[in-house]
Amino acid sequence: MFEQIFENVRQKSPLIHNITNYVTVNDCANMLLACGGSPIMADDLEDAVEITAICGGLNINIGTLNQRTVPVMFAAGKRANELGHPVVLDPVGAGASRLRTDTALGLLEKVRFSVIRGNISEMKTLALGSGTTKGVDADGADRVTEDNLEEVIWFAENFAKKIGTVITITGAIDIVTDGERAFCIRNGRPEMSSITGTGCQLSALTAAFVTANPERVLEAAAAAVCAMGLCGEIAYRRMTDLDGNSSYRNYIIDAMYRLTPAELEKGANYEVR
Amino acid sequence: MFEQIFENVRQKSPLIHNITNYVTVNDCANMLLACGGSPIMADDLEDAVEITAICGGLNINIGTLNQRTVPVMFAAGKRANELGHPVVLDPVGAGASRLRTDTALGLLEKVRFSVIRGNISEMKTLALGSGTTKGVDADGADRVTEDNLEEVIWFAENFAKKIGTVITITGAIDIVTDGERAFCIRNGRPEMSSITGTGCQLSALTAAFVTANPERVLEAAAAAVCAMGLCGEIAYRRMTDLDGNSSYRNYIIDAMYRLTPAELEKGANYEVR
Amino acid sequence: MFEQIFENVRQKSPLIHNITNYVTVNDCANMLLACGGSPIMADDLEDAVEITAICGGLNINIGTLNQRTVPVMFAAGKRANELGHPVVLDPVGAGASRLRTDTALGLLEKVRFSVIRGNISEMKTLALGSGTTKGVDADGADRVTEDNLEEVIWFAENFAKKIGTVITITGAIDIVTDGERAFCIRNGRPEMSSITGTGCQLSALTAAFVTANPERVLEAAAAAVCAMGLCGEIAYRRMTDLDGNSSYRNYIIDAMYRLTPAELEKGANYEVR
Repeated sequence: MFEQIFENVRQKSPLIHNITNYVTVNDCANMLLACGGSPIMADDLEDAVEITAICGGLNINIGTLNQRTVPVMFAAGKRANELGHPVVLDPVGAGASRLRTDTALGLLEKVRFSVIRGNISEMKTLALGSGTTKGVDADGADRVTEDNLEEVIWFAENFAKKIGTVITITGAIDIVTDGERAFCIRNGRPEMSSITGTGCQLSALTAAFVTANPERVLEAAAAAVCAMGLCGEIAYRRMTDLDGNSSYRNYIIDAMYRLTPAELEKGANYEVR
Repeated sequence: MFEQIFENVRQKSPLIHNITNYVTVNDCANMLLACGGSPIMADDLEDAVEITAICGGLNINIGTLNQRTVPVMFAAGKRANELGHPVVLDPVGAGASRLRTDTALGLLEKVRFSVIRGNISEMKTLALGSGTTKGVDADGADRVTEDNLEEVIWFAENFAKKIGTVITITGAIDIVTDGERAFCIRNGRPEMSSITGTGCQLSALTAAFVTANPERVLEAAAAAVCAMGLCGEIAYRRMTDLDGNSSYRNYIIDAMYRLTPAELEKGANYEVR
Repeated sequence: MFEQIFENVRQKSPLIHNITNYVTVNDCANMLLACGGSPIMADDLEDAVEITAICGGLNINIGTLNQRTVPVMFAAGKRANELGHPVVLDPVGAGASRLRTDTALGLLEKVRFSVIRGNISEMKTLALGSGTTKGVDADGADRVTEDNLEEVIWFAENFAKKIGTVITITGAIDIVTDGERAFCIRNGRPEMSSITGTGCQLSALTAAFVTANPERVLEAAAAAVCAMGLCGEIAYRRMTDLDGNSSYRNYIIDAMYRLTPAELEKGANYEVR
């Protein structure tokens, strides 16, 4: 199934509008190109609404949000909804500040998202309306492990059901669920967290996968997670004794550029519950 | 001739002020350093006008323009004109939104540019005052091929003549013309379009080449296109089975860092019409 | 001593809030991760003050300052001071424009900095209240060499003493002083200046080192300079005939990722005066 989903990305080359942070924006653009999609960035109020209209999907990332760009996220999200375009939310740092939490919660209220992708701390913040995120990474107390996996799936399914959106929670084990079914994904490498923006890249990737497969949002979101994790594994095998997080970043994007749909099908490591 | 032009860049190390997008800005800075130039970025109204004055040339790229930065483009362009500095325009996405089209057209009216570099869709938008750009890439219907080459040269020469500016249209075949003569350039690789910002980098490079060779703007702009394409070829030869667009990006900048003026002279693949 | 200082960075993983330029922000984030720290970027007024509070240290870099972000620098700096967090200033381009000079001088007046890191031209601007910086690089007339080393140390010590802040002046020879003692550091490679943002990365690194070693600010700042320079040396040894400044950038961050505290102790090349 993931083979066809990825094939659709390569064939349709979805144009994705990204309203995203300036820290990892270049990597997001190259990751979108690597998977077969096409990126465009626009965050001016007037510009963004028009750009959204010519795109196939929208990716909203609140990583370096500000008073100027927050209204743009709402306006572009609304426009994308009107046009029936898939919209992905990456609530970077929700729980770490009032502005981030409020913006994420406000977006959740005003915009229909196809997928929300974040770490468990960010997701708990969205579900509970407040949080204790330490920066942009998940709290230690919040990590997803085999021990608390059932509990996290239960949380994710309930949250997904409640808001009617596919939820992607990434960590040591990744969970993607629409509230009915949950994909537990064991692709990826722990070293990916030592690169800035692998989460942001996955959100952009998710937007491309979902946009190219609008009828299968859950499966497309899960395929994106598997693809990202698999590329992390492939890239890791390439690492020499001299390579560190900067080369690893390049190798992961390179791996996505080279990855075939058949390889994704074969390398995806998940179970459906 | 290109040997001397590139030698001048290496010798004079032109300081280039870039008002550019936050997606590819880091690559533009490293590309400018790679060619022997020196980059500075400033986009605050007050700051930019002063920074322009201490620089040798100005590169305006509207990739992630907004209401705050658009007036800065006009003000810095005006200041650069007063000082007789070369100014390059990269009309990213002109035709994709009203703000982009209007800003590019407005700049064309108020600022004298030495060179405008864009894809054929963006250029048609500027020439016609409206367009149908699909995102930041040229429309399929607009691609420059051997079949429509004559027509595109005719268009470029007329547009260049009309506005009195050197026009660089990049695609499978690149055209650089001042309205009298046209360089048709066949350097480069199709894979370069799978990297974000190769066009932006070329615009920054063009600013450096023209600033170091103010008496030969047409030739300098053509040399920059050849240099960028040649580096794309050199970098491509270095690619392994594991490399993708992210490593390719690094290798192209690396190639520019290593390229000698003599190698540019030898590797430049163009005809003058 | 540097071994323990670096060990503390790896162990404590300091969370560093960066208000920095959009040119080199990604490299700063990856460098912070490479050294064992954790980066977060926030530059909205409301957001930044809260984010600063959850971080261990603050890094202010005025590289692409604007009217919106300048007040954020003051507010976050004030908040960090209230909380007793280390604050580092990178006065990029002070002397190159009024806004940059005034902002740097204003910050110096209103915010207590643990360390200020810049090139000699920027530092002279701060000390004298005006300057002649050519862009973001040190003026040729200002370079630190063996010939003027004594003079520069004298200047740095006096400035450090006067403002009660550790001063890091980077160049061919780096000087780190608190006004009492001066570290003269001879790590590094001249090729590092052909990469955009090695200075910005060092400032971010300095923030991490100082935050993890608040009782030894001078030594921590010196250790950061040695670590950066040493990584420049290690990375340089890895360069092939095809590599240029883009790969060199990656290799330096990679080297920091791999560097052990013991290797830093052994490779640090400095004398204390």
